[in-house]
Amino acid sequence: MSQFINAKDTLVTDAIEGILETSNGTLARLDGYPHIKVVTRRNWDKSKVALISGGGSGHEPAHAGFVGEGMLTAAVCGEVFASPSVDAVLAGILAVTGPAGCLLIVKNYTGDRLNFGLAAERARAFGLKVSMVVVDDDIALPHLPQARGVAGTLFVHKIAGAMAEDGADLDAITQAAQKVISATASIGKSLDTCTVPGSAKEDRIPQGKAELGLGIHGEAGVEQVDFQDAKVAMDMVLGKLENALSKGPCVALLNNLGGTTPLEMAVLSHELARSPKAKSITSIIGPAPMMTSLDMHGFSVSILPMDKVQEAALARPVPMNAWPGLAKLAAAEVAPLPDGLSPIQPIPSDNAATRALIETCCDLLIASETDLNALDAKSGDGDTGSTLATAARALKDALDRMPLADLTQLFRAIGNELSQTMGGSSGVILGIFFGATGDACANGKPVTDALKAGLERISEVGGAARGHRTMIDALAPALDALDDGLTQAAQAARTGADATAQMGQAKAGRASYVPEENLIGHTDPGAEAVARLFEGLAAAE
Amino acid sequence: MSQFINAKDTLVTDAIEGILETSNGTLARLDGYPHIKVVTRRNWDKSKVALISGGGSGHEPAHAGFVGEGMLTAAVCGEVFASPSVDAVLAGILAVTGPAGCLLIVKNYTGDRLNFGLAAERARAFGLKVSMVVVDDDIALPHLPQARGVAGTLFVHKIAGAMAEDGADLDAITQAAQKVISATASIGKSLDTCTVPGSAKEDRIPQGKAELGLGIHGEAGVEQVDFQDAKVAMDMVLGKLENALSKGPCVALLNNLGGTTPLEMAVLSHELARSPKAKSITSIIGPAPMMTSLDMHGFSVSILPMDKVQEAALARPVPMNAWPGLAKLAAAEVAPLPDGLSPIQPIPSDNAATRALIETCCDLLIASETDLNALDAKSGDGDTGSTLATAARALKDALDRMPLADLTQLFRAIGNELSQTMGGSSGVILGIFFGATGDACANGKPVTDALKAGLERISEVGGAARGHRTMIDALAPALDALDDGLTQAAQAARTGADATAQMGQAKAGRASYVPEENLIGHTDPGAEAVARLFEGLAAAE
Repeated sequence: MSQFINAKDTLVTDAIEGILETSNGTLARLDGYPHIKVVTRRNWDKSKVALISGGGSGHEPAHAGFVGEGMLTAAVCGEVFASPSVDAVLAGILAVTGPAGCLLIVKNYTGDRLNFGLAAERARAFGLKVSMVVVDDDIALPHLPQARGVAGTLFVHKIAGAMAEDGADLDAITQAAQKVISATASIGKSLDTCTVPGSAKEDRIPQGKAELGLGIHGEAGVEQVDFQDAKVAMDMVLGKLENALSKGPCVALLNNLGGTTPLEMAVLSHELARSPKAKSITSIIGPAPMMTSLDMHGFSVSILPMDKVQEAALARPVPMNAWPGLAKLAAAEVAPLPDGLSPIQPIPSDNAATRALIETCCDLLIASETDLNALDAKSGDGDTGSTLATAARALKDALDRMPLADLTQLFRAIGNELSQTMGGSSGVILGIFFGATGDACANGKPVTDALKAGLERISEVGGAARGHRTMIDALAPALDALDDGLTQAAQAARTGADATAQMGQAKAGRASYVPEENLIGHTDPGAEAVARLFEGLAAAE
Repeated sequence: MSQFINAKDTLVTDAIEGILETSNGTLARLDGYPHIKVVTRRNWDKSKVALISGGGSGHEPAHAGFVGEGMLTAAVCGEVFASPSVDAVLAGILAVTGPAGCLLIVKNYTGDRLNFGLAAERARAFGLKVSMVVVDDDIALPHLPQARGVAGTLFVHKIAGAMAEDGADLDAITQAAQKVISATASIGKSLDTCTVPGSAKEDRIPQGKAELGLGIHGEAGVEQVDFQDAKVAMDMVLGKLENALSKGPCVALLNNLGGTTPLEMAVLSHELARSPKAKSITSIIGPAPMMTSLDMHGFSVSILPMDKVQEAALARPVPMNAWPGLAKLAAAEVAPLPDGLSPIQPIPSDNAATRALIETCCDLLIASETDLNALDAKSGDGDTGSTLATAARALKDALDRMPLADLTQLFRAIGNELSQTMGGSSGVILGIFFGATGDACANGKPVTDALKAGLERISEVGGAARGHRTMIDALAPALDALDDGLTQAAQAARTGADATAQMGQAKAGRASYVPEENLIGHTDPGAEAVARLFEGLAAAE
């Protein structure tokens, strides 16, 4: 599978450059590519305790995305899924650590522990104060004394970050970080493995199965379980976390492992919010990709039973976009539907001439049903005649409910009737046409001008103009000629309709998808309907 | 392919509930599920112009994620890739529109134009002021008069949003929106199609190819092109945008179409930043998923040549996490490497007794090479003996450079030497051990206590304790007994080493991955090495 990278060996440095270039000047890096890949805060005040994290890449936005005010001071980045070197970590420590010292926040992987540990030792030889905490929040493998560090690491970054920004000392921050680590529990679930750049994707999880308790390096989960739906998936994950959830009010961090769509993450948020197992969850961080595993189609939930101080630290805004903020979990607010969704029913009234005119129009369309269907079959799906005839029959049936004596109200009522009974885009277009015509009448325009205003509106909304091979090619010239009389209007409509047969490309409407050779020689059925309407009215005059 | 959803027909409503529940109380929805899916701002002031957008779902975070202060007032959501109904749009308009009126921001798709257009007509019949703009930023199909609306829509949301928040009137906002639309150009590129829930994924793009000019509904791109790497991909996209790019200082919106990893998006950011075609791009929004196409593995770039007013509107912070903010595009800031990465070279000095002791230790390890390798072959990869012997030889060779007369410096120097010559985790662990021992010496501790401090540190960093089947099982009891004499220490080390043969499960180190049956009966090679060392020293005394 291709990926948007240049080469495996420049992947991480290319990405770091991109992160810096789009950081709005908030981030810098140390010289020393390719071996030393350290992202640091700019304008850093060494009188505060520095927070340094990092590890293998492939977990973005962790960790470089969390470098900034109120979170990390530096991120030491390894190659994808590989620990950074001792020298790289040491460079990071030396670059940002002042008299207040630094805390290394390390995910529990042997390579990271050792390399950060040795770098800490070397830094101490320079007289620097260096503490180190190891995050081991993963509960997937309870028999392992060395639980992995996964997305719960973000709790540590944020809480320690808030304290460091406030000027707390190294011991206090280290203790607070240790307290967070002891209390945090995380577990992940995935429908697919990740694609490690330069390697073929392992096809490990069969259709209909999910992996529970996987890590963030593509390693297999503890078990493969049946996948039913989002609800069951979330309930199972929360079930594994029930020990942490039982310890009072909690914050949940809902992490996208990389390849899960925002739509799915929103569904999982809802399942988390409504699960009976989540009653103690009062706040949520996410859903968002925070500690990813490349493109893994999965999610993880981290739980921290929190006190007020921790909650305040988590809630403190930071400028980094990768941090989604803390939200109170709350039931969705539902507002009542506004009045007015049902169109206002006009007061019926009669007018013999108007009634006769409409009936004539309807009869003309009904009579053209077969011809128009046949014409539409040449360039469309052959239903223009039936669509118009059905609407005409419905309109005739509705005449007794119509305000026939009030032209403004009548246009609007016809628009509502057609948009409801015709269906499809034709109904909507005629609904807009008659609605806008009624509006123009209400504003005092004479009928022909009002009809032209209606035409202008459908042209604007539908994006069709004269020459686009639509009914507008007949209707527009007809309305232009209407003040001269129906005969002139009918002639103009006919000329316009016939001209559509020579238009090789439709520029709007469904016929725009039909090849030229299927269009040439055939009149557009909508334009033909308009022409027949005006011709019929002129003949009946 | 499974997805984290419950059922296709509750997908969008489930997701909206999740969005609301995690919105920290900033969003509400209208009653009327399943047909009416309208997300609105809470605490909305109807004296300002309302901004309403929407369309089919599957583009999250668009549009619900952009509802909030400074951007949209309401999002009207259809099913996945399907326009919302006229009633739904009308409900949205009626719910949020006050005397200042509302602007409908519609992406250029027939269904959306018609349904928003008819809803606007109905709302106008209630006397509401309603404007509508149609976003058609996609330049992939230049021959189509109806260009699609894609991620450039976000420019409209943000600029109109800032104006509405400032109290601008409907005409001014509509004109400004229209100006943005006229100037915006977008195009997308993808390595894979998207997975529409409930449908099989189309396998349209072969390996080694990419699609250029695709839409956001899974429709095929204008052409399939060879995919080489991120650089060529970005250059090709920017080449298509050169008309917009030629019009002065521009902002680029770098959009993740859904399934591209943050790592890849960062690489693409870098390619955008360094492309010669991007010289006029002064600011960037993203990279981030803003207008996605479900899980499509692609990206799009939208370009807006902007004036100062537009730039200020885009730069204004908003509380919605989905909006990544505007960043000045700038070269990466590179800070020099700090001093101190090369360990301080100690001043060599001699001490015959110390030299003899170290040489004895080294010879003992060299003599044990074959035995220790054989032992390691039972539970590991058979190289413990060689690893230690190689280090011992290197250490002997380095003795003339060592500060043999200064114990504190000597421990540190041995640590540095071993961590550099041994390689692997053993070298790091011994580096930490001797480094921490030197530290303790420097703090005035007697040698035995200093060695115990070193042990404590490797235990802390490596996570191993007594009983975990490591060298600690021999070293810890030996150090405990050391003040009683070397003979006692050697006995304690031997007892401890022998006990590891009965430990069925290693709890740290590589042997923790080895099954119990392969461990029982075999002494841990690290512990054996420690025992032999102390036994040899006791015998030589």
